[in-house]
Amino acid sequence: MIQDNEASGPLGPPLEAPIVRRLAVVGIGLIGSSIIHACRARRIAGHVVAIDRDPAVVGRCRALGLGDEQTTDIAGIAGCDLVVLCIPVGAFAEVAAAMAPHLKPGAIVSDVGSVKGSIIAQISPHLPAGVHLVPAHPVAGTEYSGPDAGFATLFQRRWCILTPPEGTDAAATGLVDRFWHAMGADVEVMTAEHHDRVLAITSHVPHLIAYNIVGTAADLETVTESEVIKFSAGGFRDFTRIAASDPTMWRDIFLHNREAVLEMLGRLNEDVAILARAIRWGDGETLFRLFTRTRAIRRGIIDQGQDAAEPDFGRRHAEQPGGGKAEA
Amino acid sequence: MIQDNEASGPLGPPLEAPIVRRLAVVGIGLIGSSIIHACRARRIAGHVVAIDRDPAVVGRCRALGLGDEQTTDIAGIAGCDLVVLCIPVGAFAEVAAAMAPHLKPGAIVSDVGSVKGSIIAQISPHLPAGVHLVPAHPVAGTEYSGPDAGFATLFQRRWCILTPPEGTDAAATGLVDRFWHAMGADVEVMTAEHHDRVLAITSHVPHLIAYNIVGTAADLETVTESEVIKFSAGGFRDFTRIAASDPTMWRDIFLHNREAVLEMLGRLNEDVAILARAIRWGDGETLFRLFTRTRAIRRGIIDQGQDAAEPDFGRRHAEQPGGGKAEA
Repeated sequence: MIQDNEASGPLGPPLEAPIVRRLAVVGIGLIGSSIIHACRARRIAGHVVAIDRDPAVVGRCRALGLGDEQTTDIAGIAGCDLVVLCIPVGAFAEVAAAMAPHLKPGAIVSDVGSVKGSIIAQISPHLPAGVHLVPAHPVAGTEYSGPDAGFATLFQRRWCILTPPEGTDAAATGLVDRFWHAMGADVEVMTAEHHDRVLAITSHVPHLIAYNIVGTAADLETVTESEVIKFSAGGFRDFTRIAASDPTMWRDIFLHNREAVLEMLGRLNEDVAILARAIRWGDGETLFRLFTRTRAIRRGIIDQGQDAAEPDFGRRHAEQPGGGKAEA
Repeated sequence: MIQDNEASGPLGPPLEAPIVRRLAVVGIGLIGSSIIHACRARRIAGHVVAIDRDPAVVGRCRALGLGDEQTTDIAGIAGCDLVVLCIPVGAFAEVAAAMAPHLKPGAIVSDVGSVKGSIIAQISPHLPAGVHLVPAHPVAGTEYSGPDAGFATLFQRRWCILTPPEGTDAAATGLVDRFWHAMGADVEVMTAEHHDRVLAITSHVPHLIAYNIVGTAADLETVTESEVIKFSAGGFRDFTRIAASDPTMWRDIFLHNREAVLEMLGRLNEDVAILARAIRWGDGETLFRLFTRTRAIRRGIIDQGQDAAEPDFGRRHAEQPGGGKAEA
């Protein structure tokens, strides 16, 4: 019997038997390489094929020992039981078409894309009968990209959302569920449509807002870019981290989750108009009420282990207290 | 001769002679308590009076050993060479009026407020002749508040902006400059008006945007608050940190830097309208161009030591690489 003990790695001990016999990971960026690291750490897959269309990335994978084999050829998925697509949201139709002839009967196709409705629409027409589609989205990441950025614990204590279309084979969904659990994630199932709304507010619009404020700040004529950088510790720098995320990935997310993003943006604009009016008319009560309410959400995020309780995200100061008066 | 060596504390060794003979810190929150910690660590002040109108805070100061004496009485500033006001921006007129009769001739009054124009306007009418006003703003902080939240290195490698009104005594400005340098800060001098514009974009508007998005997310009817919390690791949680900052402090900042905040907010709204239009019409080029440009700002912030290069602000993952492909 497998024991989860201190001696094993941070993800837990290796599995007695792999969950996936033969795994293909297509697109070796931050997420793809982290999946391979996690699978190696716990022996989640018996054999791993790392596929990327960029020969330079495939070369890096070889140098880093990512996967049991590495290739630029999508035909490398042949014979794989699970194929996980870790590519930009805009590339799914093309890759699905190229991949389809090589899929073995009974194979499961999954992905890690940040938009689910569009991805299902792009993949489904290309899948042969008998191949299962189980879309997945691990809500985890850093602002770094590429095969060097990955690490085995990226998904630990993070949520992975599955959006199997109605009628999806339960055994296929079950396998993808076990696959993510083994990498340390918690799994939740919902519809693609609901996923796209939830992520619009928890991820897509925050990124858009961050990109926007960084862009606006760079364009001001009364404040120099050098001043913006120098005095960024007052709050601005927090936004620059997510505004340093991969441009291709994020362009595709906005274009493929248009309705939900525009709807949430509309809500934000309404609400910011109320705040602007309160500032203009000196209505401190409205401001104070909102600023008090928002602390509860932060507390919920910390209580549920979705962020660090340490001040300043745990950014290193030379010396720092354990907690301080926690948002009291 | 004083040597800056490894054996001394992170801020450097204690000074041979204090910069300030007798120091009063009025308002013992995160900033006030951090000043007292830093002054003690390097013996920057010969004697420190900790003043807070809240008896509970004064009690905490005694328990924590913050200052050589602690009192709720503003008359405690009597005989002090430097008085640093660490109070909400909206409280300056009242405190200046109460403090004025107790100021000794030649004393320097400074502060740490996030808005400078309004503070100067509030204090100046109350200052007796022969007392110097040298407004200061250390651009540093965490989302925690209160006397327990402070630590000696909060200001290390951060900027402190001085905004002495025209005609301010150069020796007084020089002393405040040395005071902040001794606490590990770099010092820059500018006009109050320019400060208020710079901080509007680097601090005030980012906080407003963060408060706003957290508030909007909490109010959605199609996505539950529990979902917002669960899936916050996709970006949203970054905003919740600054949206957990002290409500009174931030209410006052917006009310007292109204013009600059509303102007910057207007800019942001124009720019976000361009992005919304690009999303609506599928203009990926406009999005991609912005998303590439914003990376350069992040790089500048890291290069200048204003944020951590570690992925995810250095948030603790069980295992993590040194860097990854840094925003390349």
